[in-house]
Amino acid sequence: MKAFMNENFLLETQTAQDLYHNHAAKMPVIDYHCHLIPQMVADDHQFRSLTEIWLGGDHYKWRAMRTNGIDERYITGPDTSDWEKFQKWAETVPYTMRNPLYHWTHLELKTAFGIDKVLNGSTAQDIYDECNEKLNTPEYSARNIMRRYRVEVVCTTDDPIDSLEHHIRTRESGFEIKMLPTWRPDKAMAVEDPVAFRAYMEKLSEVSGVTISTYDDMVDALRKRHDFFAENGCKLSDHGIEEFYAEDYTDEEIKTIFNKVYGGTPLTREEILKYKSAMLVLFGEMDYEKGWAQQFHYGAIRNNNSKMFKLIGADTGFDSIGEFNTAKAMSKFLDRLNSRDKLAKTILYNLNPCANEVIATMVGNFQDGTVPGKIQFGSGWWFLDQKDGMQKQMNALSVLGLLSRFVGMLTDSRSFLSYPRHEYFRRTLCNLYGTDVENGELPDDRALLGETIENISYYNAKEYFGF
Amino acid sequence: MKAFMNENFLLETQTAQDLYHNHAAKMPVIDYHCHLIPQMVADDHQFRSLTEIWLGGDHYKWRAMRTNGIDERYITGPDTSDWEKFQKWAETVPYTMRNPLYHWTHLELKTAFGIDKVLNGSTAQDIYDECNEKLNTPEYSARNIMRRYRVEVVCTTDDPIDSLEHHIRTRESGFEIKMLPTWRPDKAMAVEDPVAFRAYMEKLSEVSGVTISTYDDMVDALRKRHDFFAENGCKLSDHGIEEFYAEDYTDEEIKTIFNKVYGGTPLTREEILKYKSAMLVLFGEMDYEKGWAQQFHYGAIRNNNSKMFKLIGADTGFDSIGEFNTAKAMSKFLDRLNSRDKLAKTILYNLNPCANEVIATMVGNFQDGTVPGKIQFGSGWWFLDQKDGMQKQMNALSVLGLLSRFVGMLTDSRSFLSYPRHEYFRRTLCNLYGTDVENGELPDDRALLGETIENISYYNAKEYFGF
Amino acid sequence: MKAFMNENFLLETQTAQDLYHNHAAKMPVIDYHCHLIPQMVADDHQFRSLTEIWLGGDHYKWRAMRTNGIDERYITGPDTSDWEKFQKWAETVPYTMRNPLYHWTHLELKTAFGIDKVLNGSTAQDIYDECNEKLNTPEYSARNIMRRYRVEVVCTTDDPIDSLEHHIRTRESGFEIKMLPTWRPDKAMAVEDPVAFRAYMEKLSEVSGVTISTYDDMVDALRKRHDFFAENGCKLSDHGIEEFYAEDYTDEEIKTIFNKVYGGTPLTREEILKYKSAMLVLFGEMDYEKGWAQQFHYGAIRNNNSKMFKLIGADTGFDSIGEFNTAKAMSKFLDRLNSRDKLAKTILYNLNPCANEVIATMVGNFQDGTVPGKIQFGSGWWFLDQKDGMQKQMNALSVLGLLSRFVGMLTDSRSFLSYPRHEYFRRTLCNLYGTDVENGELPDDRALLGETIENISYYNAKEYFGF
Repeated sequence: MKAFMNENFLLETQTAQDLYHNHAAKMPVIDYHCHLIPQMVADDHQFRSLTEIWLGGDHYKWRAMRTNGIDERYITGPDTSDWEKFQKWAETVPYTMRNPLYHWTHLELKTAFGIDKVLNGSTAQDIYDECNEKLNTPEYSARNIMRRYRVEVVCTTDDPIDSLEHHIRTRESGFEIKMLPTWRPDKAMAVEDPVAFRAYMEKLSEVSGVTISTYDDMVDALRKRHDFFAENGCKLSDHGIEEFYAEDYTDEEIKTIFNKVYGGTPLTREEILKYKSAMLVLFGEMDYEKGWAQQFHYGAIRNNNSKMFKLIGADTGFDSIGEFNTAKAMSKFLDRLNSRDKLAKTILYNLNPCANEVIATMVGNFQDGTVPGKIQFGSGWWFLDQKDGMQKQMNALSVLGLLSRFVGMLTDSRSFLSYPRHEYFRRTLCNLYGTDVENGELPDDRALLGETIENISYYNAKEYFGF
Repeated sequence: MKAFMNENFLLETQTAQDLYHNHAAKMPVIDYHCHLIPQMVADDHQFRSLTEIWLGGDHYKWRAMRTNGIDERYITGPDTSDWEKFQKWAETVPYTMRNPLYHWTHLELKTAFGIDKVLNGSTAQDIYDECNEKLNTPEYSARNIMRRYRVEVVCTTDDPIDSLEHHIRTRESGFEIKMLPTWRPDKAMAVEDPVAFRAYMEKLSEVSGVTISTYDDMVDALRKRHDFFAENGCKLSDHGIEEFYAEDYTDEEIKTIFNKVYGGTPLTREEILKYKSAMLVLFGEMDYEKGWAQQFHYGAIRNNNSKMFKLIGADTGFDSIGEFNTAKAMSKFLDRLNSRDKLAKTILYNLNPCANEVIATMVGNFQDGTVPGKIQFGSGWWFLDQKDGMQKQMNALSVLGLLSRFVGMLTDSRSFLSYPRHEYFRRTLCNLYGTDVENGELPDDRALLGETIENISYYNAKEYFGF
Repeated sequence: MKAFMNENFLLETQTAQDLYHNHAAKMPVIDYHCHLIPQMVADDHQFRSLTEIWLGGDHYKWRAMRTNGIDERYITGPDTSDWEKFQKWAETVPYTMRNPLYHWTHLELKTAFGIDKVLNGSTAQDIYDECNEKLNTPEYSARNIMRRYRVEVVCTTDDPIDSLEHHIRTRESGFEIKMLPTWRPDKAMAVEDPVAFRAYMEKLSEVSGVTISTYDDMVDALRKRHDFFAENGCKLSDHGIEEFYAEDYTDEEIKTIFNKVYGGTPLTREEILKYKSAMLVLFGEMDYEKGWAQQFHYGAIRNNNSKMFKLIGADTGFDSIGEFNTAKAMSKFLDRLNSRDKLAKTILYNLNPCANEVIATMVGNFQDGTVPGKIQFGSGWWFLDQKDGMQKQMNALSVLGLLSRFVGMLTDSRSFLSYPRHEYFRRTLCNLYGTDVENGELPDDRALLGETIENISYYNAKEYFGF
């Protein structure tokens, strides 16, 4: 029997252990998609408690606590203390066995704080105290945590109207880890709500210095911001969409739709879809022209619980995996850009694992030989960011594409303690190759294997994004 | 090599063996959803032959026999003997290797009759004779079979108009095993056929003593029956639906639709969907008020073979797994009840394993901390009630929710010989935990592990349903 | 550690090894669905180079090369040499680790050419020279390659207007391996394009000798060709469809639609679907009357890349797995034929593995006891024709149907070097049974196991198709 989470955690063969310890583990971390709050890096934030750094904003843990019968007061309530919240979480941990939270929890305690104890109601106080003490030292500032995990690049997720002041301040401070912005223009597509859209347009006008009264003005303003993001090191865009939008439309139609919504009139469903279709193409072309990679995260059903949405807002643990048959629209959208020779490097992230094979074959349709792995099947996203989800994604990509050209892992996280997810991913990756080698399904060519592992862990991303 | 189906069947590690033999196997059986015929329990039925208890009504076996090239005469035909039917089944058994029928068959022979022989054409006569001899003894009456399997509670599936006379008679006989009714009001939603619906309403009027001429009358009548079920120990409802129904409607519309169909006029598709949407909410509210758990079985395509449906009717082995994108409607339905603070404990059963991740995340949206595991992802249903299906359900629940709060197994069966399915489930469950422990993915904390196994096998259900 | 691809490749237990070497490997090959070019068999074609036999037309390899960043010139370009193309492929091979191409490549080198070396940029020249030398000898003619792999029957894929001259010539040459035609009437259903449809009708008229001016004439002409195919040994039909077509229609409607499209007028979407629905029934009835088996390959999204389609046409590596909810239509179509007692033996192939459970249960609805395994769940198709895809298909068929009645493997290939896929399939098959036996999940009855393996490898197909 193997000890719980020892140095060979998830590494079931000697080959896997060799590949991990001698190759994967040696690579720095490129976290090309995350939701860190840039100001915390700029300020080199010091955390007040383990609750702040670990439970604040972590809706994965909140969902588990609700499922475990914990009252919302102890989850997001304003009137309970950091310790009370932590205690309830600690009491929930034993109930999370077989959930990735169980592994993340102990991997983070171990790698960040050197704690090997199992967390539960009895060990809660000791662990809480020990971590808080450490968090109070400079060694545990935001930047020092990033250094501890040997992070080389992080790409945050930013709105086109963002001033990027914290990115600039961080860069100018001489911080050796690159923090780059990512262009996430979802609000420029959100024409469902004319009032919010108008307000957004006014802010866009202000930051870009472009007076917006027509669709063309808006495009000018967006292009100005796109240039500004590029000047600040941006290499990626990101789009959160429910399904792919690939309606037929004319430029005239889009201009008319813009005028309508800008004027405050609600759009029809058809108009909304046409508008989103046009914007996806526009953004795709802009990214192509800059040589960026565009990312699409699709397939979530968000804010299912309207009662809790009213109480505590979005991104609080009430989203789930959707069912969408969007492959034809995805194909049409990609083909539209490809036909104009404007298809940028693209990463497709699905949320329902049923679409794994669809995506893994779709990417093959638009590989054009210009960039290895130009169209990427993104690593297991959100609910799928765990061993089972990662394995399914990597296995589908392996048998239907080229795993060797995969740009690999990202945290997608708001937390400075999430970097061990790269370790988790790399262990899982090495285990897949190691098992195949020991089963006689791959030749035991350690040079080739080691290079492949290093590429997927680090070099592929570095080269693909141009960091 | 491990011997065929020995005491460590399905238990691949020592940890799994320990967890099963010292924890899971010691727990009584709570079978909270089944289709036993209550009269057979009330009468303490004695079976005439192995064919009656084993092949009668078992459409799983019928499908296997048809696939194996057996003439329908030997399957459901009225002119073949019990022995002839059994013989054809026995000859089919070797062709079912790798199908769960192969395991169920031998597990039932072993646990019910103490027979270790493999069933096939050559052993058929001996096994048939031995079993029939035993079945003729009082030890093998319906109630004694239930005792043999240490059943503590069974919940049958009953129509609101059912008199529950057999439940009452059984209870009054002092039978120590609880047989409780389950409220299954599908016919009160079946407005597709005005004639059948009217006939049903007339029976409902009769048993409830409420004269029905309006929608409100019908609701009164249903509430009376709901109360009557509660008085007789009912703790669960069950709904067989193709998809979730969550159309928008007004009370006025529903009253008008009721009048139309009650008057004998066929409804439009839209009216049918509105009506079903309203009834699901009504039933949900009734269940919430009583503290019951509501179950939804969705996603089957039934009666695919119209020729055989005309010949031998429904539930004869011509149903299959459907393809439905119903997640958004499911969410809307659950949200509707939740927004009114009327969402009962709920169990969602899917038939297509592709929906596993959808369900496993959907349940998380409505956990509210009041009851641990308030919204449940139901155990592998029907075609998925086998090792592969169970593992997929438990793995999805593990990584996307809390397996530790799972209410576990049920037989969903018409047969008194199906209780070994609980054993099968528990072995599979223990094997999952055991493997993780021995791989170093869970700590070897036997007290915690044993408690978790006992909870999923027994205590969770006991507490959740309030037995 | 097991050596790479040794004699026990994919066989993880001794039982599996015994079943493979002593049973599966001894069976001849029946390749009941492929895309061999009949003329190459008739001419006993001699290949000019490894590039011709291996890379010509192999869009699996082309996709991998594009993904690997290889310029299209070296893939399908007319201005690069056979050697240059091969070199680029060889350099791509190390990047295909974990993709089935890696296994096919080395299995084909070994079984066809006796080469045990791993292919990569360094070994490319030696391997190329050695293979080319062998390909220049009579031992490596098309027919001799088929003999080398102990092929007994191949069924090609042919249009109803095909003269079958190469089939006839091959048969009359006394070639001991049966090459039979398969009826693939897709073009007779392709009414989307009136001009192409009219042109096809004119060719059909010519080869059948029937003057076509009405729908009934066309049916007569098709029946004549169907008879002609039967006279030439045809035992199967095949249909490439996106989804199942099961619209309601009347004979009058179909005749009117025929007149419209035949007259050159484009059809509405509804008319197209009605027409296809009618043709599927017509073809099904014709096949039933002849005792043929009908095959349906559904669910691809084809020609996603319109730019490349314009440049190099169809079937060049730009197709992918689709998302379709077609189960209800599939059921309705099969039921339509079954209700008329005209449902032929049927094989259903899905392309999205999400439909595995749908298909595996759908086939059970129409098993009627006349032929063992009358309705078949086809072996992993196209993208799913690899270890993972095969295992999923066989596991779904096992737990939801009878794997023992499976007609097994086919290559679906254009290449004379694809026969090792039967070996790959058989190894995978034996491994599944072997693992179950050694885990105690199946009894160690070698006679029964050996017979089952031989049946799935060979005898089931032989008997089912009547070869």
